[in-house]
Amino acid sequence: MKAIGVFDSGLGGLTVVRELIRQLPYEDIVYFGDTARVPYGTKSRETIIRFSTEDILFLLKHDVKLICVACNTASSVALSAVKGHFKVPIVGVIAPGAKEAISATQNKRIGVLGTRSTVKSRAYDTQIKKLDPGAQVTAVACPLFVPFVEEDWLSGKVILEVARAYLKPLKDAKVDTVILGCTHYPLLKPVIKKVLGERVVLIDSARQVAGEVRKILAKGGQLNKKRASRRRFYVSDNPEGFSKLARRFLGKSAQNVMKVNNV
Amino acid sequence: MKAIGVFDSGLGGLTVVRELIRQLPYEDIVYFGDTARVPYGTKSRETIIRFSTEDILFLLKHDVKLICVACNTASSVALSAVKGHFKVPIVGVIAPGAKEAISATQNKRIGVLGTRSTVKSRAYDTQIKKLDPGAQVTAVACPLFVPFVEEDWLSGKVILEVARAYLKPLKDAKVDTVILGCTHYPLLKPVIKKVLGERVVLIDSARQVAGEVRKILAKGGQLNKKRASRRRFYVSDNPEGFSKLARRFLGKSAQNVMKVNNV
Repeated sequence: MKAIGVFDSGLGGLTVVRELIRQLPYEDIVYFGDTARVPYGTKSRETIIRFSTEDILFLLKHDVKLICVACNTASSVALSAVKGHFKVPIVGVIAPGAKEAISATQNKRIGVLGTRSTVKSRAYDTQIKKLDPGAQVTAVACPLFVPFVEEDWLSGKVILEVARAYLKPLKDAKVDTVILGCTHYPLLKPVIKKVLGERVVLIDSARQVAGEVRKILAKGGQLNKKRASRRRFYVSDNPEGFSKLARRFLGKSAQNVMKVNNV
Repeated sequence: MKAIGVFDSGLGGLTVVRELIRQLPYEDIVYFGDTARVPYGTKSRETIIRFSTEDILFLLKHDVKLICVACNTASSVALSAVKGHFKVPIVGVIAPGAKEAISATQNKRIGVLGTRSTVKSRAYDTQIKKLDPGAQVTAVACPLFVPFVEEDWLSGKVILEVARAYLKPLKDAKVDTVILGCTHYPLLKPVIKKVLGERVVLIDSARQVAGEVRKILAKGGQLNKKRASRRRFYVSDNPEGFSKLARRFLGKSAQNVMKVNNV
């Protein structure tokens, strides 16, 4: 039976893999993390589309039955441009995240945190307005959040001040729900709650994305029936670093990490 | 007459171009900034060597007479590995920076700030010890400095706290001279001085590197005699962003910025 393909600019997409494993324990998974060219969120639309296309072509070489774009930047910027080119179903993280936010909000004021490219694309705004034209969206780019997470600098007054600066527009807009529109951000949940208050609902789309994948595979009769599964991880740089950091995102260590030049 | 080639992972290398223009106003310059794959400082040795080799091959297509590696990470990690392969002289930023630090220090205690890869390579330590085995080197990786500079977040209490955390080992070691081992760091001079004191000498190697280039070209009889010069800038992503930010590093705007896929 064919595997599910997942790609991300780095290792943040492992949060989606974690949820796929939880909801679909019998599926084979092939993961690609483009660690040689990370980050995507600061690059241009044209380049993000090129990189995403190359990532998809790499996964297709592994004969996958569905591709999950576990990167908010690639989902926001490239998905609509490339989706139509391929036969294989391609699932992004934007629509599931928007859906969950709509069902969670009480006051219809939703905040979105993302990379510069994700916010510029207005992908979340568009998707949310499609589901509920009355919703009010406040989107903010937080370019320093990813470096802070990668430095493991997750608490203390410095990151708190950075979060205060970024989150002020969300506070002013009185949002009750915030989409964590980057796979790194869930690690900053405590500091975000400290700034916005304990009652704010923080949405990370991994759970919803895995549900969407399950639905599509079930509909196509493509769910795996066998009781053993195989997970393979490919990166374009630094497999050792990936293995070491994987635990933080995956909840367990990643075995079988292989380095490839995908281009 | 042939041009001088300069490359960097992004646009920081323009500080070297600025100094080349000042010291060698009649030379043609071809610059390549690998903005599609920036940053290099978080990538592995193997990948930095691959990228640097590709950057050199790109410049060689423009028939340059000398190549200047205006990136501390590439100079630290890749220069010794690739230098021997090419006929063209290749000048890095490490040796000139080390030389200037040795002549500036009074107490022989030198600090080095750099990316994770630069510090891990120990290139500055090796070079300094070669010039003066009695010198004491304290090297610290400052991975958040580049994102802060790129965000233009150059003052205020947040960056001051980040600098305090990074610079503590240098303060403890009582260094009187600090090598700014990354082309982005000169923009943080005010905050670094605030933490380490006004009397610390901050070395950025651009001036010394341009001097080295001049010396090599003069020796080979390759200095340009004509009174007009041409500068061309190539980037692998986002030429508009490059033009806009170039002023900060180059001291004036960059004309003729062209996008290329160097690989």
